Order: sequence, then structure tokens, then C-alpha cells
Amino acid sequence: MAMMEVGAGTLAAVEFAKANGDRFVDELKALLRIPSVSTAPEHAEDVRRAAQFCADELKRIGLENIELIETATTERPGGHPLVYADFLHTTGKPTVLCYGHYDVQPAEPLDEWKSPPFEPTERHGNLYARGAVDDKGQMWMHVKAIESLMISCGGKLPVNLRVILEGEEEVGGEGIATFVREHGERLKADVALVSDTEMFAPETPTLCVGLRGMIYTEIEARGARTDLHSGMYGGTVPNPFVALAQVIAKLKDEDGKILIPGFYDKVQTPTDAELKAWKALPFDEEEYREHEVGSTELTGEPGYTTLERTWSRPTLDVHGMPGGFIGAGAKTVIPAKAVAKVSMRLVPDMTPAETFALYKEYVESICPKGIVLEVRLIHSGDPIVVSTDNAFVRAATEAMREVFGKDTVFVRGGGSIPIVGDFVRELKTPTVLMGFGLPDDNLHAPNEKFNLSNFHRGIESIIRFLAAVGA
Amino acid sequence: MAMMEVGAGTLAAVEFAKANGDRFVDELKALLRIPSVSTAPEHAEDVRRAAQFCADELKRIGLENIELIETATTERPGGHPLVYADFLHTTGKPTVLCYGHYDVQPAEPLDEWKSPPFEPTERHGNLYARGAVDDKGQMWMHVKAIESLMISCGGKLPVNLRVILEGEEEVGGEGIATFVREHGERLKADVALVSDTEMFAPETPTLCVGLRGMIYTEIEARGARTDLHSGMYGGTVPNPFVALAQVIAKLKDEDGKILIPGFYDKVQTPTDAELKAWKALPFDEEEYREHEVGSTELTGEPGYTTLERTWSRPTLDVHGMPGGFIGAGAKTVIPAKAVAKVSMRLVPDMTPAETFALYKEYVESICPKGIVLEVRLIHSGDPIVVSTDNAFVRAATEAMREVFGKDTVFVRGGGSIPIVGDFVRELKTPTVLMGFGLPDDNLHAPNEKFNLSNFHRGIESIIRFLAAVGA
Repeated sequence: MAMMEVGAGTLAAVEFAKANGDRFVDELKALLRIPSVSTAPEHAEDVRRAAQFCADELKRIGLENIELIETATTERPGGHPLVYADFLHTTGKPTVLCYGHYDVQPAEPLDEWKSPPFEPTERHGNLYARGAVDDKGQMWMHVKAIESLMISCGGKLPVNLRVILEGEEEVGGEGIATFVREHGERLKADVALVSDTEMFAPETPTLCVGLRGMIYTEIEARGARTDLHSGMYGGTVPNPFVALAQVIAKLKDEDGKILIPGFYDKVQTPTDAELKAWKALPFDEEEYREHEVGSTELTGEPGYTTLERTWSRPTLDVHGMPGGFIGAGAKTVIPAKAVAKVSMRLVPDMTPAETFALYKEYVESICPKGIVLEVRLIHSGDPIVVSTDNAFVRAATEAMREVFGKDTVFVRGGGSIPIVGDFVRELKTPTVLMGFGLPDDNLHAPNEKFNLSNFHRGIESIIRFLAAVGA
Repeated sequence: MAMMEVGAGTLAAVEFAKANGDRFVDELKALLRIPSVSTAPEHAEDVRRAAQFCADELKRIGLENIELIETATTERPGGHPLVYADFLHTTGKPTVLCYGHYDVQPAEPLDEWKSPPFEPTERHGNLYARGAVDDKGQMWMHVKAIESLMISCGGKLPVNLRVILEGEEEVGGEGIATFVREHGERLKADVALVSDTEMFAPETPTLCVGLRGMIYTEIEARGARTDLHSGMYGGTVPNPFVALAQVIAKLKDEDGKILIPGFYDKVQTPTDAELKAWKALPFDEEEYREHEVGSTELTGEPGYTTLERTWSRPTLDVHGMPGGFIGAGAKTVIPAKAVAKVSMRLVPDMTPAETFALYKEYVESICPKGIVLEVRLIHSGDPIVVSTDNAFVRAATEAMREVFGKDTVFVRGGGSIPIVGDFVRELKTPTVLMGFGLPDDNLHAPNEKFNLSNFHRGIESIIRFLAAVGA
């Protein structure tokens, strides 16, 4: 693999992509019209339609061994299919695994969309639709980069290629995780390319080199055997919500420091070089507070910047507290039980198992009087940091520099892409997280969009990356 | 009014009630089938149906001036009607005001009911249904006692009578409170009879001589402008649930002492005589913990007995915490807002207005960083202690002694019946709280029940009480 080497085929592919850009967008719109909401059983057939749409296109552009791999089992009847394709005829060249997901988040609340979520609409150079950027639009960049190379290289590719697309990324990715454990050899590659992250800022080519892991838990507090009336029993019966409040107040202090003994022991500080690079990023905290967050102030662990707090520090959040009375008005119940949904984001070298054990032991040790607590693990994912010291990352950096005319920045992401941990740990595959979303693209929210100029520049970056890997 | 005087009419009425007991239960079942949940806007028509059901029956048994008094106003469009009836032809005799309520608590959680909440079902001598004892069943005792006297006295009654039934007791009783303030003369009476309390223990005739008041509030915590993803934002964005937990943990310490400055300043200690009487009651704390409550231990303010904690000490409870994600599984949302439903029970001489002001000021003073709190009063009721030194209380005591063959005990109740405070304070009407529920009747909880033997003994006690008042 030689750097900077851009052959005639590559330039022809770039020209082809430019000439066919409008068609690529039209095809993407057709895919976006399929409401492939993976969490909604009533959309199961739509999810399958989207899978088939992708499989058909991978076949049309010349890939081989196209397969819809079923992940549904008796225990998991709602599993959605994987889409697999490959092209393994480029003797002596590396194999690239392209990953994307064709499922989307639910579109609710519908009344906050300016144009219907499943009727893709262009406004001001953006394409608005559920899944526009997460991840149908970014996945489509891979497909279209491959098509452009295939056409301009006369039915060949500069690299060997495997494509794996999943339909459960938005619901935890259990199907693909099982597939990787059981059939990892079918995804064997020298490098994985994932476009499901975002650029740090407009016009700023970005590689993501770390993702936080997580544990998602429930704490169930039980007091009385049945719901009781607070008039008759208030003052003598333990209240599960008050108990959970006491527990939560002891999990995290008012400055945002987590109080679980040993919680921070394994946390690795980013290198000085990484921290220095973050400080150089164009980040305006007040702008972020006002336009992205909208709270009166930002919070978090003292002594850390906002980027450190969201990228390299673990944290703890409460997502909901089911139980008791949540309707309008008043009901004076002391509920028999209440639950807190509590998750922690983990950073290297924390592990989900160890962190959950510390957490559980601590929560049980601060159990309020008269209350029985049960601490449950719902799901978890490892934190990862991907190595930047390899030719693949250098090729990606160079490809984007070429397209954007600016140096690529290295960032981390606060969230998880569960399968990336599996690529890194199970398959030992170096992974390049080359994303073209923007911070204001409204992922998981109404009015999701994808900047069309980034869609086209993404395709060109991927063409150049694949060409460089195969050079 | 002469004590012990039981005329032929009274005995005939008792016989009539016994002969018609099964019919009385059937009628009650018909009323219980109407889901008159006053807090639920979708049940507004059911609430009105229940009012009409009661009005029709009061007319059928011979009362006069039947009226559905509307309480809805432009400002309060959800107000439910009062039902009024009277019989004022018993010259020279006292006037009794019979009060009850035909609205019920919500039935949720539905899956914990052994038989459907609005399909009354008899098991082991109990009638199970939402509202069985609170208060449709106890209200029906009044109606059936009046019917029995009316029939056996040849269309006359031994007393003058007014009946007022409300449909908002479970949501604060604002409609009747306004009516009492504006048209108190229409409820003018020598004594009010309320059956919405319970017996201290099975086979123990009980008069309630004090009720706690309450304030029911909501604390709304707002952080970010919209829901955010905890992966991308966790660690820097204020979490409304964590904030509410911190606030709640500062409202009540781990021993159950309330930390609001000034909260206990107006609390009156019961008289030595009352405390001594309470100590003589047949109360087994371990039995109560195990069979009524079912928690691992009882909690509450140090230095007070369980009866003091629930009758003569104020307290604070959390009933539910709406917001965020409460479904099964995991959603990693940092919600923009969350709410805590918090109520306080008050004792003489605390007032709702003063207590709410202290609470609101304190909560605002401990508002966590980055959070905006709004503290709202949903409804309130004054605490009361009723006088026991009058002939009406003696008549009630004697009526129950006659029916149960045991001495009546005097207790307080931990809950509120908001209108009783208005009867006592606004109308200066001596009030008799003669209730026939049992401590394990599951008020406000799944599997609410009414012991049918107590229903029938309640009717007889009320017949004897009315006869004695009119003797």
C-alpha cells in the first residue's frame, strides 16, 4: 500500500461519482422512503424491504455472494437480516470490510418534523429524512464509492472487499454480534471501514479514534408488599422513590463526580498529544451550551473540559424512573416498588463486568432502611480506542485531506457503536471510523438531515481511501 | 335527643335492612361498575353517570330537591357535579348532613388485580372492586340506612336530613370547597355524618376524631432544551432525574425527619389523655409490619410510635416520577425534563399555605446546577381535630356499641377528607367520622375490598345513630 498514489482509475471513479451525483441522491431517497424502524414490530416488513433494496443494489453494481443472512431465532423472533456481499478477486491486495446499517430510529414526535420523515426533502443543500445521515446516507456513500470504482476500473476493484449491513444497530445489534462470534471468519479483513460518526465541525475532516462503552442497569427498590395509601401509612412505611433518590444522590455528587469506590481506578488519561490536539479543536463552549444543549449551564466533573467529559471520562445518567403514579393530577400512593434506569458510560480501560460489580456492591451497601434493592444489568458494551498508528488510518487521513483541502482532526465519540468493539476485540481488525455527519444533523431527533455536499465528499473520500489501500 | 331510645320504627328499619341486604349489595355492585375515576379526563362521562346513579336512587327512596350541582367553571372545565338531596319535614328535630363521595382512585396497576377493578366480585365475605370501601360502599350505607328508615317510618324520617355527595374527593375536593364557601347555608345542619374512614381493627367499632391535612405538589426539573443522547452528551448535560434525586434526598433524611426549615414549628403534640388512649389500643407493631405493610422493617421519625407517626406527625412522600424512558429495555436518553410528585401530610396547627411556602422556598434554594425547577401546588387540605365532647359523638358511640357489642375506640386518621376541614371550620358543624373500612382493605391499591359484614353492620349503626339523634 503506497501513500499518495492516485492512479487514473481513481480519478475516473471520482469523475464518475461527480457526474452521477444526482442519481446517487435519487437512489438514496428511494431507500429513505422505506420506514425501516427496527424497534417497531409493525415495521418488520419495511426493515426487510430495506435489506432487500440494499442487496439488490450490491448485486447490480457487481458484487458477489449476495446473501440476506437471517438472525431471527426461536428465542429472538424479531431479529432482522444481515446483508452480506463480497468481491475477493484482487489478488495480493488487502481486504476491506465495509459496515453500515439500514435500520433507523423511530420518527416520533411526528409533529415536530418540518417535512414528513419518510418523504426525503431537500432544503438549503440538506436532505431531510429519518435515516438521512444515520446511517442510510452514510452507508450509501460506501455503495456508491464501490460502484464508481467498479465502473471506472472495468469491473474490477483496487482491493478485496466484504460488505456487511445490519438492521438492528438502533436496537442493540444483537444479531450481528452473534454472527461475529459464530462466523467471524466470514468477515475476515485487514481493515474495517465504518461511516456512522460525525465530523467535529463543518468543513473539518474527522476520524473518530475512540468510543465510550456502557452498562445499562436497573435498580429496583421494594418497600411494602403492595401499594399503600400515603394518608394511612405515610410516616412509617419505606418509600421506594425516596429510597432511590437517596441511592442516586450517593452515586454522583453535586459536581458530577461519581462516588462508587474504585469507579475511576482503571480510567486511562488520554496522551498529552491527544489532549493537546483536542484543545486545538475549534470548540466554543458557550455556543455549544446555547445552541446544542440549551441548559442554563453545563455541568460535569470539575477539572475537565467539555470534550474530556464527553469523550474520555466515564459518567452516569438516570434515564427514567418507572413505578408509582405518573398520570396527570394527584394519586397518593406509596408504591410497593419503583425502578431507576441508570446507565454508565465507560472509557478505556474500564470493563463492563468489573464496573457493574463495583456498582452493584456499592448500591447494595447503601440500601436504605426497610427497602430491598435488586440491581440488574440490561446490556453492556466495551469502550474502545482504535490504534491510529497504522497505514489504514494514514490512508484515510490523506484521502480526506485531499477532498476537503484541510488537515484531518482526530476525535473520540461519547456513544457506542456496539459492533465496532467486536470488530476490534473479536476480529482484531483495525477499524477506521470515517464519518461525514454534522453535530446539528439531529440524529435520533426530528428533522434529521444530511448535508449533501458532505454526502458527495464522503463518496470521493471513500473512493480515494479504497484506492490508497489497494495501491 | 335522648340516648338509648330505640323505637319500633328503628327496629323495623333494622329488620328491613337485614331482609333487603342482598339487594343493597346488588345495587352497590351496579354503582361500582361505573369507572368514576375523577382524576382521568377520559372518565369524565363515567363520573357524571355515577352522580346521576346516586341522584336517581336518592329520589327513588323519597328524598326531595334532588339536584346535580355543577362545579365546572371556565377556569376549571373538568369540575365534577355535586349531588344534593334533602328531607326537611321533621319539625323540631336536628338536621343531619350526610356526606360521601362517588368518585374513585385510578385502578392502575391493572395486572395486580385478582378480579377486574370495575367488575365487583365477592370472595370470602368481601366485595372486591375499586371504590368498594372508598367511598362508594360506605356512601351506599348512608343511602340504604335512609331508605330503611323511610320505609319503616311510613315515608317519614326521625331527623331532618341533607345529603351532599361529591365527585372530586380523590382529586382534592375543590368543587365542594367552593360550594361550601359560597353556599354554605344550603348545607346548614346540626351534625355532619361522614363514613370515609376505617375501624382500628376487625370487630372494633371506631370513631375517628382527627385527620391529617395535605399538600400535593409537583417539582418539575428542566435541563437541556430537548431530549439528548447520553452517549454524545453524558457527562456535561444536567440530568433532571439526578437533580430531582438530589433535591428529594435533601427533603427527608435517612431516618425520616423532614429537613425543610420551619416545617415542624406549628406541630401540636396530642394531649396526654389521647396519647395514653392510643397506647391502650390493641396494636402489635410486628404484626402490622408483617401483615399490613410487608416491608423488612418499618421506618419513620425517631422517638415516635407508629400510631404517632401516622396520626399526629407530618410526613413527606414521593408518589411517582414521570418523564424520560419507562418502557422495558434500554433507551439512553437524557430527558429534557422530569417531574417528582411529592406530597406532605400535615397535622394541627400546620396550614397548607404556610407549609407550601416553606417547601417551595427551600426546594428553590437547593436547586442543582444547570437545572431550572418549578414547584407547583396541585391541591391541599387542612388538618383537623374534631370535638368529642357532644351528644352526637355519644349517640354514634352508643349506636356502634349496640351493633358490635363492644366499646367504641377513638382514633385519628392519617389521611385527609378535605371537606371535613371545611365542615368543621367554615360551617362550624360538629362532625362524626363513623367508618367501617378495615386496615387491610387496600384503599388506593389493587384489590380494594369492603367486608360485607361491615357493610351491613354499618347500615344498622347509621339507622340507630339517625334514630338516636331524632329521638
